[in-house]
Amino acid sequence: MPEMRRDPITKNWVIIATERARRPESELIDGDALAEGIAHDPACFFCTGNEYTTPPEVMAYRREESMSDKPGWSLRVVPNKYAALNMEGSFKLDNSNNNNLKVSGYAAGLAEVIIETDHHSKNIALFNNKETFAVLKSYRDRYLVLSQEDAIEYITIFRNNGKEAGATLIHPHSQILAIPIVPINVKNEIGGAKEHYDKTLNCIYCDIIENELREKRRIVCETDNFLAFAPYWSKTPFETWVAPKFHSARYETLSNLHLEELAIVWKAVLYKIYAGLDNPPYNYYIHTAPVHESPDKYYHWHMEFIPKLTMAAGFELATGMYINITIPEDCADFLRDIPVK
Amino acid sequence: MPEMRRDPITKNWVIIATERARRPESELIDGDALAEGIAHDPACFFCTGNEYTTPPEVMAYRREESMSDKPGWSLRVVPNKYAALNMEGSFKLDNSNNNNLKVSGYAAGLAEVIIETDHHSKNIALFNNKETFAVLKSYRDRYLVLSQEDAIEYITIFRNNGKEAGATLIHPHSQILAIPIVPINVKNEIGGAKEHYDKTLNCIYCDIIENELREKRRIVCETDNFLAFAPYWSKTPFETWVAPKFHSARYETLSNLHLEELAIVWKAVLYKIYAGLDNPPYNYYIHTAPVHESPDKYYHWHMEFIPKLTMAAGFELATGMYINITIPEDCADFLRDIPVK
Repeated sequence: MPEMRRDPITKNWVIIATERARRPESELIDGDALAEGIAHDPACFFCTGNEYTTPPEVMAYRREESMSDKPGWSLRVVPNKYAALNMEGSFKLDNSNNNNLKVSGYAAGLAEVIIETDHHSKNIALFNNKETFAVLKSYRDRYLVLSQEDAIEYITIFRNNGKEAGATLIHPHSQILAIPIVPINVKNEIGGAKEHYDKTLNCIYCDIIENELREKRRIVCETDNFLAFAPYWSKTPFETWVAPKFHSARYETLSNLHLEELAIVWKAVLYKIYAGLDNPPYNYYIHTAPVHESPDKYYHWHMEFIPKLTMAAGFELATGMYINITIPEDCADFLRDIPVK
Repeated sequence: MPEMRRDPITKNWVIIATERARRPESELIDGDALAEGIAHDPACFFCTGNEYTTPPEVMAYRREESMSDKPGWSLRVVPNKYAALNMEGSFKLDNSNNNNLKVSGYAAGLAEVIIETDHHSKNIALFNNKETFAVLKSYRDRYLVLSQEDAIEYITIFRNNGKEAGATLIHPHSQILAIPIVPINVKNEIGGAKEHYDKTLNCIYCDIIENELREKRRIVCETDNFLAFAPYWSKTPFETWVAPKFHSARYETLSNLHLEELAIVWKAVLYKIYAGLDNPPYNYYIHTAPVHESPDKYYHWHMEFIPKLTMAAGFELATGMYINITIPEDCADFLRDIPVK
């Protein structure tokens, strides 16, 4: 039974999910998916022809005449076979004993995998326009479906690229974890944003973006409506954020037209990181507003790209602070100068 | 110039320290320092005879007749040559511009390295009683000296074991970072502990320890005055905490007698992790009260040992939550049964 437990001191939650330990390790990869990689691997669970090896798909972009869980798809979303959460139980605090020292709950939620392409090993940084649009659209489409679940308080969409960043399968994929609480990092952002709003009546993200556009010191790339920049307070080398220039708390409200434009900036960031830093391991994720809260006036969705070039070690674990060995302005200069192909 | 910058949204601090990028990489190790490793490496900066390659020592345990920065020591503390902070400037908030969107300060502080033995590659899990006592004593002794500095608000002592846990040199060593702010993880612990104290007049750590001793489900080992246990809310497999059974907010107030007893539990945890988990990479650190705050009634010092058997990836970065693929009670059972040699 997947379980959530709460640190009684900091109130942070942990998911205890032994099911995850059973993930296949046979396909562990070395972090270097190549542009010239193979298009099809008969042993890959995510490749065309092996649809039966995954749980039944919950969504797919596929040729009109094609059938569910059969070939003919270009993007496919399936439940995670090794899910850290499930909807068999419901999340209720169990703090019956010990004066709140042992608070737990059923880890109710959903875990899905977005198989981003039928190509076994194409690097996402080399996706064409149609493919990049499809990935960003699938994020929105799953948000809209999953947010209908009453039990879901937050939907996390993230991507691990390369073994050192936690990827266990080479076939390009993103992941979704829909969970029954609002996670601490998002809570903290919302808290800080609210404080700023209460003082200024401005969205702090809008203020930051306006300042970046004025200073022009940390911009990586931009379109009319979207900006990629290195945060002034970057935790890691080449950390890059992508956000809409217009105020919007929710990724899931993006129109197809905006998704197409976002895809240009998103692809540019991925390509610059890929080409400029030699296809490093990285993670990215979307921060959007919680499903059932309304911080819409002062929260602002964004994506955070975190290349993994250095390692968080004892100091970071002990303090929650990061030591960044690069200057964010230098990182932005470097990435800005990489041409996108 | 080392600089600190503050995330305007969450108020978390980052240290920007390009000096760290210049650390030597020639001695990168593979994480498997062996018991039978070599006692002396003439190329090692930390080995006897090479004292001149480090900055002058600030403390050492050495033979009475021996001279500073010469052989004759058994433990030696030196400033970190590649320090993330220094005391050349002073920490003052610079939030003069942009309505607090760009808050920074001089990264004022001290970074030191504790060279724990003159043996080039002895695994710390195999240290004898005299050696383990010396390490724990050096932590206390440096705390007492560094806490005299007005500019220092927090002193972090931590250890990275193995390359995958961030160690860059094989010669056994711990690290100290004395910083001009109280880090977020400690702030959060103090905040939670105060909340519990305000409600119950109890230290929450004392309550947790009492409960662990009563339930006997997560104990790894213990002496009369110290307990090692797997937290109910463990973030990672085999996470282990060591804390005094008696109430104490400050590691630095430990007597020599208590240090000797602590060394038994500390060594047992290190040995059980070493022998039971095949010398895995791990980090540990001490959480003690901030230098200039007085949470002494409700805070409780402790050490956290975090073996690195799984990887924090996109989900953890996005949310600040962890997925633990093991059950803490099972981990405690496993470690408890490993005999200590």
